Amino acid sequence: MSTYGTLFRVTTFGESHCASVGAIIDGCPPGLQLSAADIQVQMDRRRPGQSDLTTPRNEKDAVLLQSGLEHGVTLGTPIALIVRNEDQRPHDYSETDLYPRPSHADYTYLEKYGVKASSGGGRSSARETVGRVAAGAIAERYLKIAYGVEIVAFVSSVGKVHLPVTVPAPSVDEDENDDAPDPMSEEFRALLASVSRAEVDKSATRCPHPETAERMKKRIIRAKDAADSIGGTVTCVIRNLPSGLGEPVFDKFEAKLAHAMLSIPATKGFEIGSGFRGAEVPGSKHNDAFVRRADGSLGTETNLEVSFKPPATISQAQATAQYDGTPGSLAARGRHDPCVVPRAVPIVEAMASIVVMDLLLIQKSREGAAALLPPITTLPATMVMPPKVKVNGL
Amino acid sequence: MSTYGTLFRVTTFGESHCASVGAIIDGCPPGLQLSAADIQVQMDRRRPGQSDLTTPRNEKDAVLLQSGLEHGVTLGTPIALIVRNEDQRPHDYSETDLYPRPSHADYTYLEKYGVKASSGGGRSSARETVGRVAAGAIAERYLKIAYGVEIVAFVSSVGKVHLPVTVPAPSVDEDENDDAPDPMSEEFRALLASVSRAEVDKSATRCPHPETAERMKKRIIRAKDAADSIGGTVTCVIRNLPSGLGEPVFDKFEAKLAHAMLSIPATKGFEIGSGFRGAEVPGSKHNDAFVRRADGSLGTETNLEVSFKPPATISQAQATAQYDGTPGSLAARGRHDPCVVPRAVPIVEAMASIVVMDLLLIQKSREGAAALLPPITTLPATMVMPPKVKVNGL
Amino acid sequence: MSTYGTLFRVTTFGESHCASVGAIIDGCPPGLQLSAADIQVQMDRRRPGQSDLTTPRNEKDAVLLQSGLEHGVTLGTPIALIVRNEDQRPHDYSETDLYPRPSHADYTYLEKYGVKASSGGGRSSARETVGRVAAGAIAERYLKIAYGVEIVAFVSSVGKVHLPVTVPAPSVDEDENDDAPDPMSEEFRALLASVSRAEVDKSATRCPHPETAERMKKRIIRAKDAADSIGGTVTCVIRNLPSGLGEPVFDKFEAKLAHAMLSIPATKGFEIGSGFRGAEVPGSKHNDAFVRRADGSLGTETNLEVSFKPPATISQAQATAQYDGTPGSLAARGRHDPCVVPRAVPIVEAMASIVVMDLLLIQKSREGAAALLPPITTLPATMVMPPKVKVNGL
Amino acid sequence: MSTYGTLFRVTTFGESHCASVGAIIDGCPPGLQLSAADIQVQMDRRRPGQSDLTTPRNEKDAVLLQSGLEHGVTLGTPIALIVRNEDQRPHDYSETDLYPRPSHADYTYLEKYGVKASSGGGRSSARETVGRVAAGAIAERYLKIAYGVEIVAFVSSVGKVHLPVTVPAPSVDEDENDDAPDPMSEEFRALLASVSRAEVDKSATRCPHPETAERMKKRIIRAKDAADSIGGTVTCVIRNLPSGLGEPVFDKFEAKLAHAMLSIPATKGFEIGSGFRGAEVPGSKHNDAFVRRADGSLGTETNLEVSFKPPATISQAQATAQYDGTPGSLAARGRHDPCVVPRAVPIVEAMASIVVMDLLLIQKSREGAAALLPPITTLPATMVMPPKVKVNGL
Repeated sequence: MSTYGTLFRVTTFGESHCASVGAIIDGCPPGLQLSAADIQVQMDRRRPGQSDLTTPRNEKDAVLLQSGLEHGVTLGTPIALIVRNEDQRPHDYSETDLYPRPSHADYTYLEKYGVKASSGGGRSSARETVGRVAAGAIAERYLKIAYGVEIVAFVSSVGKVHLPVTVPAPSVDEDENDDAPDPMSEEFRALLASVSRAEVDKSATRCPHPETAERMKKRIIRAKDAADSIGGTVTCVIRNLPSGLGEPVFDKFEAKLAHAMLSIPATKGFEIGSGFRGAEVPGSKHNDAFVRRADGSLGTETNLEVSFKPPATISQAQATAQYDGTPGSLAARGRHDPCVVPRAVPIVEAMASIVVMDLLLIQKSREGAAALLPPITTLPATMVMPPKVKVNGL
Repeated sequence: MSTYGTLFRVTTFGESHCASVGAIIDGCPPGLQLSAADIQVQMDRRRPGQSDLTTPRNEKDAVLLQSGLEHGVTLGTPIALIVRNEDQRPHDYSETDLYPRPSHADYTYLEKYGVKASSGGGRSSARETVGRVAAGAIAERYLKIAYGVEIVAFVSSVGKVHLPVTVPAPSVDEDENDDAPDPMSEEFRALLASVSRAEVDKSATRCPHPETAERMKKRIIRAKDAADSIGGTVTCVIRNLPSGLGEPVFDKFEAKLAHAMLSIPATKGFEIGSGFRGAEVPGSKHNDAFVRRADGSLGTETNLEVSFKPPATISQAQATAQYDGTPGSLAARGRHDPCVVPRAVPIVEAMASIVVMDLLLIQKSREGAAALLPPITTLPATMVMPPKVKVNGL
Repeated sequence: MSTYGTLFRVTTFGESHCASVGAIIDGCPPGLQLSAADIQVQMDRRRPGQSDLTTPRNEKDAVLLQSGLEHGVTLGTPIALIVRNEDQRPHDYSETDLYPRPSHADYTYLEKYGVKASSGGGRSSARETVGRVAAGAIAERYLKIAYGVEIVAFVSSVGKVHLPVTVPAPSVDEDENDDAPDPMSEEFRALLASVSRAEVDKSATRCPHPETAERMKKRIIRAKDAADSIGGTVTCVIRNLPSGLGEPVFDKFEAKLAHAMLSIPATKGFEIGSGFRGAEVPGSKHNDAFVRRADGSLGTETNLEVSFKPPATISQAQATAQYDGTPGSLAARGRHDPCVVPRAVPIVEAMASIVVMDLLLIQKSREGAAALLPPITTLPATMVMPPKVKVNGL
Repeated sequence: MSTYGTLFRVTTFGESHCASVGAIIDGCPPGLQLSAADIQVQMDRRRPGQSDLTTPRNEKDAVLLQSGLEHGVTLGTPIALIVRNEDQRPHDYSETDLYPRPSHADYTYLEKYGVKASSGGGRSSARETVGRVAAGAIAERYLKIAYGVEIVAFVSSVGKVHLPVTVPAPSVDEDENDDAPDPMSEEFRALLASVSRAEVDKSATRCPHPETAERMKKRIIRAKDAADSIGGTVTCVIRNLPSGLGEPVFDKFEAKLAHAMLSIPATKGFEIGSGFRGAEVPGSKHNDAFVRRADGSLGTETNLEVSFKPPATISQAQATAQYDGTPGSLAARGRHDPCVVPRAVPIVEAMASIVVMDLLLIQKSREGAAALLPPITTLPATMVMPPKVKVNGL
């Protein structure tokens, strides 16, 4: 439904042409310094009209905080926020409304609900992600202050243009050759370890590798000029992650991330760590690395990749049929993004933040509750965590 | 945590060396004819010792139904079932217990809980999936009887050995060439449309393509002989799926599937439909197909793919360190699978069944509730679903 | 937390002095005709300033619908609504802020969250119930249209002034006498069967028995004149309830109602049916009646009673202490209700509506899913529900 | 459904004549010393056959732990436990099966599910509470060790025989007299402050006041001799409760308790603190007391009361009708309790323990998360909790 999370709970609302979109964020820790500006930064990265690569609509998307704070401090009560829709008029009907748009949710929504919004996609529209981005910004602010967590996403491919460091080895079908390159190259590890949002935002494509960014830009413009669209992938790295996140067995960290990412409109795939390429590698060469944190303790760094299909709305005429079966041809009018991945970057960051926050709150509960028990003296030492344990020589 | 689902709710329990493993399945529709044998079929496909490709342990894994049925009919109350562990003795300690196994959950569990099971993995062990497979068999039985749903999974790759129909186009990094092959070939579509569990089970690899199966078998044996392990992928097709499944916006069908699949031990990636390859294709060539069902209505057929890393337990000695940091070398003793994907097939089917069942029950609620309202007369016809609508000429 | 319900899910937000209060209602069936006016009716019954028995604040409390509807029809997507706070200025600090108000949540909130709203009660304020009442009005509208459900609450006691029909038998402590009057009199049953909101609203006390209403009014004015407050009870009847509501074992209908009612500010007790008086009666005299519905089928009519403590805010000076322990005396300034029960009537109705709606949606799912199974032929007839069964001669 | 709780999650299963009943307890803190004997104590207090006041069935009800512990220490993984049913034969059918038992769930279950267990009540049977009591014993053990929490329930009335200290003031309907006795007498407060389970168990009635216990015993025997039954109430006190429990607004402590208590079979009412009597008292005389804890900090002591109707199964012949409407007369055969409240005592304790445990875990999360934030310096002192604050001079 429209609520996500157990202790950090995000509920979103809103369609394209209603009064507003927004969210209620319940479970934010009390005592967090937070302003609308903290949220607006990510909202501005999400909104359309930022470059010639995205739709020219220039939505202001100003966040209006409704509750949950006083004097810039969170109270621990639900934080509600709304963002007004600029165009609140009901959609003007026209000939194109007779057609469910191919590959859109129009028909699916109509079949599911028996009624649909005039704007077509309704809740499947990218406009719905406004609430997610706002919620993610709040989670992220807490995580940054409390743990120094850094969450940075970037565009790693557009069509067939890939960040060189992530170009997968040609997966030749072969029986004997084990000499797979490391599913994650050193160069890519270095990028994951250092990339910042400032670097990501240097290009309108949100690819932090300048040459590739330039090629991606051309690829997107080529799609635009052809009245077509193109897909891509977003990679996200989470640094300084506190340990112990994820609740076995159904709510493992990777399972929650997969859920969150595949709930973003237009997503089709998710991988974590070595992902699909890791399936080609023998166990002796596959390695889940531990990372030593600044304070000497062991940490893990998580990276994930999300695949986005090309936007279904294209200006080319497509052969299709009306709702009533009458064959015809449909060309989308108006504004649309030829490629969603640059704007998807803050959405991926937001969903990652929300997942980390929710799992962190659950783990804080376990730690707090277990800390009140007397030390365990009846178990062998290898079954009990001694303080400041170091592992594998790190 | 250990519960999954909203209306069809599965709660599992059990570690490797405790008295039993099992599950409580709450929310199964009343009046379903069900026997232990219906469940045992999938349990037997899951258990080790089925072939020389899997660990030689021969666990009987007999399902013992505890509640929720009378005279072979479900009562609508929770169905509890247990499967006894053959070896319930606490683990014998030895030198190897001083080492957290590399890439295992040993260290993670210990850090998270402050205490861990002697058997190491505890709930991260594959043994935990017994309860999932049993729950999935119940869901599947309902779906088959009520809707004719067919869920069939199979092994689509082992290491670099791929089912030919799914070999991805070499993803050459190129800027201009759009001539991507259809991300899903006609041959592959045909396989998805027809493949049966009987065909899948003809080979111990659970690959339904005999030549590829043979090559996969060799690849697994090569890993085994090298005291190594190898990863792979499982593809799953869901046929005759009722329409309208998935709850926008956070519980979309693909999001719930991704969550469920990434909760299976050793999984690293998930894609649905065109997946990652679809990200390389322009919108004009990307197509989410509708499928006409036997009764003339429109249906969708869903296919998904799950990536499994190579098992972390290998018999080769690996350089590592003890819990206390002392460097050393660890070689796993005893029995282990060199490749998990053949046994993962029924687990993927189970998780798919559980997701479909849960979302179906939610959609049945909506349909039932909406059906009690008078017809909508105040909206334009294209906003309301007329009965027996056909779309796009199908 | 601030979300209630499984399939009909209400999430509320807002404190007394923030920008707005409101709610997101997720899971409303699509295709329901609904207007802001449908909701406003109950909002107006809830708001202060309706009579000289309530606080003279005249909040407009206009409902602003944000999403989830188009052309006056629900889309099945989340319905968000906000009600602006008239006074959004941060609270002016004064000498009284040094004192946690006795019997208020001031201190509790501060201890729980480590920070509190300037307005004191924060989310414990009656202002929070705005979102509940709006959500309840939506649920109720569906239930009325789909099932003819009628939910009517009224004030049954103020202090020691009781509706005569509900005056409990003096519970003399006695060992031998079983001659308890029926815990529910015929006269009271008749009232429950017929009482309407119009009758309830004839008196500012919301007691539908004119003589008692008059006495209650005097009792409230006496409290007001004494700068004191007084408690009371609200009784609620739910008529034409569809059968089968409630999910064993933890989510029985009465358990969900109890939860919902005790979540209303200032409540201290709940009873359903014969309640506490039923505990004094032998089994041979205790009877859960079936009621025949207009269509001949069996129905149940549910009545419940909720107890409200006297408002803690009174104008009399009370000996107390400051947050820092300094003893002193505190007299509340400003406006406050001497008795909350008249305004609690629509809140009780709202929570009852929300509970019924949520449980109904779950039961619709079960019915819809079970209806797709073939008839059960292997069980004895008394274990299977034949169609149109009549029971106990009714 | 059959799962209760957010972080401490209890899922129960089992009917009267199936193989076993039991529960999975998920979310127990790791590192807790726990044995089957710790649980068995409360199981033995719950089971029938303990005295001549309860049914003579002598079920052994031995708890068999299945998972979640090793060497007597909890692992933090789900704890599963089962208790075998002594009589697992399907029910023998007889003439009485033609009748739904009056005031039982027979008809309700049949209507809800379309099929019912041969044993009639199915999950509505008291046998279902086995899993609850076991789960409660685990929660209680943690709470005792970590916080010194004490939870003691006892029988406060049987029929019209009341513990003298709780006899309510005759609620004469009067307009002017405010001289209500304190809704909770000093004598009763003293009992709540000191009563122990050992004292409670001195009498088979589980009333800790010897004279009243004797009168209750006679009252129950009188019901038994008359082939009748009798209701009663259970009072429960929770001492040394950690502060801050309960999640505004829908999951307040009292709301969760009410939910939990009304989910126990045969319950009809719940009150907390002053309850219904508090509704008769003016605000100037109503007081929610703070209690100073041993360490000097402020605590609250919670008391609640639960009302149980008389058991519906009585041996007297009752005029009723068969499922098909044929009028007739039904007298229950076999064993049944004339009064459930003595055996309900450990069930009330269990549900209280489960609620406290679950809310505690949520609050531990909040505290742990908030503690990582820097001190708030921008708010007025009365909005922020200084350390070791004392309130109201205590």
